[in-house]
Amino acid sequence: MTIKAFIYDAYGTLFDVHSVTEKAESLFNGYGKQISEAWRQKQVEYFMLHQLTDRYIPFSEITKNALSYTLNKLSLSYKKEDLDHLMNAYLELQAYEEVSETLKNLNRRKVKQTIFSNGTKDMLTPLVKKRELSDFCNVLSVDDVKQYKPSPAAYKYAHESLGVNCDEILFMSSNFWDITGASSYGFKTAWINRSKLPEDVLGIEPDYIYSNLKELLNI
Amino acid sequence: MTIKAFIYDAYGTLFDVHSVTEKAESLFNGYGKQISEAWRQKQVEYFMLHQLTDRYIPFSEITKNALSYTLNKLSLSYKKEDLDHLMNAYLELQAYEEVSETLKNLNRRKVKQTIFSNGTKDMLTPLVKKRELSDFCNVLSVDDVKQYKPSPAAYKYAHESLGVNCDEILFMSSNFWDITGASSYGFKTAWINRSKLPEDVLGIEPDYIYSNLKELLNI
Repeated sequence: MTIKAFIYDAYGTLFDVHSVTEKAESLFNGYGKQISEAWRQKQVEYFMLHQLTDRYIPFSEITKNALSYTLNKLSLSYKKEDLDHLMNAYLELQAYEEVSETLKNLNRRKVKQTIFSNGTKDMLTPLVKKRELSDFCNVLSVDDVKQYKPSPAAYKYAHESLGVNCDEILFMSSNFWDITGASSYGFKTAWINRSKLPEDVLGIEPDYIYSNLKELLNI
Repeated sequence: MTIKAFIYDAYGTLFDVHSVTEKAESLFNGYGKQISEAWRQKQVEYFMLHQLTDRYIPFSEITKNALSYTLNKLSLSYKKEDLDHLMNAYLELQAYEEVSETLKNLNRRKVKQTIFSNGTKDMLTPLVKKRELSDFCNVLSVDDVKQYKPSPAAYKYAHESLGVNCDEILFMSSNFWDITGASSYGFKTAWINRSKLPEDVLGIEPDYIYSNLKELLNI
């Protein structure tokens, strides 16, 4: 294949959203894992619902709203500061272990690398800097067009920003909904399936399935 | 309030989607509840994803695809007939206990009642007949316009089909995502919250919250 640009999704793909578990556990003893899982699930549901009902609000607000709901659902009482603490955890999520090495290697080979995320720049910029990826990756946010992935308008924005042909872009995500949107738009796609999940049945097949990003180095 | 028409969502609102549990349990011993819950969750995710990526396929297919994924995810092996058996369970879901009585009563008061669902007519018609609601309710499906709730285009179709003003329609659903879409479109809404869930944090409040449909009789 002739690939001129690599696009990475951020949350769940480069960065482990469940690295909030520890902080959640320290604030709500015994609930860390449950909070982390329910929070992520609601976050995804909420941006999809905002997109479906044409009511864009930034991902930072969606993430906070999803956290409020999660704590309410678990009948946990909390203060505003608890929300702030947990929101701050999003600015220092762990990168998956192979990420830094792989992106550095690809950068040496002059591959054009872009992070394209539903997150807002105020969430992404500190995180990408903290994990020392700023030198290899450009960062694009759907916030620039106020259309969430997986809507076609979001991928169109990334496509036009990169200025290369659609089928010369390899789009990587661990989120199958993201692969569905990107494939359907016309990108080549690689599903990063770290958890050995079955493929979703959505009439879309990713072009590649990798167990982690390191496999990119072989192509 | 002056309400000229009542609209009910079907799945989860009039009919208990989890009444498939028994059949699932009989086919996959020990997994009935898990199958039922994961199946419903995937079903909702899948029609949202098809809507978000502009790739409409009928709800009957989505429901079957969600079931396949669910069984794959649980590493259960199955035959085509198992899928058919479980899909048939959708044609005879239980109605919640107050439904028949309440709709009958409202019909005597000459209230115009409509079921408006993401389901296809081939799924809805046998079910509504089986639960003896055909005499009180008209049935509308998003399949007529190929736009899933909660997109505005879906509610617009129901609105135009009824031919009354938007704010003279009371829309009822147990699904908060459906309330969000209907409120955002402009209907009056009543969230039927049988499970005492907290409200989702989506910037939308339902006009009414009822613990079941019987409360409609007091307005």
